Amino acid sequence: MGRASTRVTIWNEYRHEKDNPDVAKVYPDGIHEALRQGLAPYGFDLETATLDEPEHGLAEAVLDRTDVLIWWGHRAHDEVDDRIVERVQERVLQGMGLIVLHSGHYSKIFKKLMGTSCALKWREADEKERLWVVKPTHPIAAGLPEYFELEKEEMYGEFFDVPDPDELVLVSWFEGGEVFRSGCAYHRGHGKIFYFRPGHETYPTYYREPVLRVIANSIGWASDARGAAPWYGNAAPLETIRHKDV
Amino acid sequence: MGRASTRVTIWNEYRHEKDNPDVAKVYPDGIHEALRQGLAPYGFDLETATLDEPEHGLAEAVLDRTDVLIWWGHRAHDEVDDRIVERVQERVLQGMGLIVLHSGHYSKIFKKLMGTSCALKWREADEKERLWVVKPTHPIAAGLPEYFELEKEEMYGEFFDVPDPDELVLVSWFEGGEVFRSGCAYHRGHGKIFYFRPGHETYPTYYREPVLRVIANSIGWASDARGAAPWYGNAAPLETIRHKDV
Amino acid sequence: MGRASTRVTIWNEYRHEKDNPDVAKVYPDGIHEALRQGLAPYGFDLETATLDEPEHGLAEAVLDRTDVLIWWGHRAHDEVDDRIVERVQERVLQGMGLIVLHSGHYSKIFKKLMGTSCALKWREADEKERLWVVKPTHPIAAGLPEYFELEKEEMYGEFFDVPDPDELVLVSWFEGGEVFRSGCAYHRGHGKIFYFRPGHETYPTYYREPVLRVIANSIGWASDARGAAPWYGNAAPLETIRHKDV
Amino acid sequence: MGRASTRVTIWNEYRHEKDNPDVAKVYPDGIHEALRQGLAPYGFDLETATLDEPEHGLAEAVLDRTDVLIWWGHRAHDEVDDRIVERVQERVLQGMGLIVLHSGHYSKIFKKLMGTSCALKWREADEKERLWVVKPTHPIAAGLPEYFELEKEEMYGEFFDVPDPDELVLVSWFEGGEVFRSGCAYHRGHGKIFYFRPGHETYPTYYREPVLRVIANSIGWASDARGAAPWYGNAAPLETIRHKDV
Repeated sequence: MGRASTRVTIWNEYRHEKDNPDVAKVYPDGIHEALRQGLAPYGFDLETATLDEPEHGLAEAVLDRTDVLIWWGHRAHDEVDDRIVERVQERVLQGMGLIVLHSGHYSKIFKKLMGTSCALKWREADEKERLWVVKPTHPIAAGLPEYFELEKEEMYGEFFDVPDPDELVLVSWFEGGEVFRSGCAYHRGHGKIFYFRPGHETYPTYYREPVLRVIANSIGWASDARGAAPWYGNAAPLETIRHKDV
Repeated sequence: MGRASTRVTIWNEYRHEKDNPDVAKVYPDGIHEALRQGLAPYGFDLETATLDEPEHGLAEAVLDRTDVLIWWGHRAHDEVDDRIVERVQERVLQGMGLIVLHSGHYSKIFKKLMGTSCALKWREADEKERLWVVKPTHPIAAGLPEYFELEKEEMYGEFFDVPDPDELVLVSWFEGGEVFRSGCAYHRGHGKIFYFRPGHETYPTYYREPVLRVIANSIGWASDARGAAPWYGNAAPLETIRHKDV
Repeated sequence: MGRASTRVTIWNEYRHEKDNPDVAKVYPDGIHEALRQGLAPYGFDLETATLDEPEHGLAEAVLDRTDVLIWWGHRAHDEVDDRIVERVQERVLQGMGLIVLHSGHYSKIFKKLMGTSCALKWREADEKERLWVVKPTHPIAAGLPEYFELEKEEMYGEFFDVPDPDELVLVSWFEGGEVFRSGCAYHRGHGKIFYFRPGHETYPTYYREPVLRVIANSIGWASDARGAAPWYGNAAPLETIRHKDV
Repeated sequence: MGRASTRVTIWNEYRHEKDNPDVAKVYPDGIHEALRQGLAPYGFDLETATLDEPEHGLAEAVLDRTDVLIWWGHRAHDEVDDRIVERVQERVLQGMGLIVLHSGHYSKIFKKLMGTSCALKWREADEKERLWVVKPTHPIAAGLPEYFELEKEEMYGEFFDVPDPDELVLVSWFEGGEVFRSGCAYHRGHGKIFYFRPGHETYPTYYREPVLRVIANSIGWASDARGAAPWYGNAAPLETIRHKDV
């Protein structure tokens, strides 16, 4: 699905990796850098941005050159400036793709675009997750087997308070007894959004091939060709209106 | 669809009716009062609320006794207090129904719940609108013919920047050449939302039988029985997790 | 959801119960009779029909008085007469509700209405199933907790070759590692169809309260009020067509 | 969207063109030939097949080399052999794309895959059709303006008795007062289906650029990369099942 010309900005909160040795061991240069390296073979034009950069690394000029934005955040959602959130929302509605990963479900930008609480059940218990493809015809499933497994992950469980996805691609099974809609595709305005569940910071999830493939596929899907940008406002009639007395 | 026990609060901006003689002629006591009288035969427990009341008439105690909130606003969307908007959003996600009428598409509460711009094309040209039922099995279509007409209405045209409705019930034909998704049903959190297009303030739309029937049906749909309220947070496992070394 | 006036016909293949002592022990009078007794408290007007009756118990007169048809079949799908299948399909498209249970996924009538193979993965291993509500606002979830469990059931696993449900209400977790879309609601023509997964013939599933509640709710949903029956064919214009030379 | 490697078979009933001089004037070599020439610039590998060829031109070997099948039929639907229809259905569920055009809505293959009557309202009155894009993010809308017009077409009106499309791309406005869901995308099994409304045999619709573009886009969409072909049947457990006594 990758096209060489697709410009991807990988945004990461980048706090756990600096403060928590367990996380640093897994992602020594940050989750964003692991993703950058993992997605490189797909031929995208990749850059990264993090919370503590000016404007969180998401200046207008950066978004100008971004086709798809990837978002990983967790404990510092509240530190993301509302103006940047509004800027990103506007860009998505104008056509920029947005891939929200794991704990990004609770980010300001995802909640703003969904309109719901985006709450869920969770558990950190080193348990097995198995992700089943329930829409094999979807381009985000391209090249995937019928399911793939992650030996240890955080659990997310239903009810997941998001709008029913426009396209439900993946459903997770968890060892502890829950299910979860783990691959949820949305169309919003002139843009596309994909929520992808896995990726707790203490596990090497973002080095796993099927995980990277899903993210790469979602970049391709979110940046695919589409119709003309909509125009809004006061519209002249296209047909003659007969002002009848009724 | 009406149940005697359903408590409905009809919220109206109530400005046009006071300032514009053309509107006052159609709705002398306000759109909210016309709706209250028109919906009375359906047996709901109805009250009204307007922008210029304290807390816009939407105090916590009012929402406590509201199963379904109807919303009509237009030129003063910006005057609605953000805290009230957040309060209403929270209630919807907890189960309160919300029926958004006509120019309410641009209200803060609808935009917040949709996550999109909710923009559209529009035209005031006294033109004919014909609303076609495209989902006859939906309870909001109960008792409707295959289509119904409004001799003079404002035009709203596509692209309508909302999420694809979970259930698309009505599509409008306009004399001037446009189409519009006019009856859009959404599930959000533990609540339901229905957007219904017609109702420009200068036309007697809210006295029309099929229009009132759609609103009454949507109240029934939005207040229908449902499953347990979801619980969110840290969840104990339901099955034994075997901590294997991988 | 039950209305006293709703007339339900419970159709059962009724072969396993007569030939297999293990099944007879669980359902001595047949699955249809267990369902009839279990649904009686909901106030429906219930009758039963079985494969070996003339016209499989589904004469025109029976369907004339049926609002909702329940279908359980398994090993004798091929013995169902194609003319009866066409008759039932026609009735569904005209408004009769259809509730397809468990192995009925492979019935002629379900495959005909879905247009797909309706194939799936399966396993008989006495394993635990946990059904999660993923659409708590749906009337079929009315009165259900967030999940319910069946200690021993047959497993059905994805990919389930059906059209994406119009409304996905339940997703199952299985002890052996699979997930399944277990409560799938469809609108077809002027009728509604609900597929509900549980109910292998060797388990007492149809005596379980949440299972009966789901079936009762689905009867209410499938027989709910709706819009006018569509009319098809050559239609006179509703507006003047100007025959311009182009 | 076109890929040089995509192999497309254009199937046409090819009767009107031979018997009706008005049609022959518009499509002297048949609708299939007009489509073949119109789609050639998109770089597909194109061949044609017609009703009166042996096996209707759809021998197993032809389908073996077909990624996407286009279908135009009208007055001879009944002459299509049921075995060929089953063959095509099976191929679609296994991954072959199917583009159904205009009066093909009443073909055996479309009705079989939809499971509904596929009935609609219609009128031949040389009236104007305007097709509005209601899902601009869809790849089938790629390169389209917000709407496009056909000066003279047959009218098709709602209710259109098909399952709600998985993705609704186009809605038509008709001069005579109707609307219609004109671009309907479906996922069935491992395959994809697109229904596209325009194309009455007496109008030069299939020479029009936006019409050809929609068809080309739908070929690209229907042949896009996807996940592994599902496997069905008796499945060994992926996790240990503990046979507890309950």
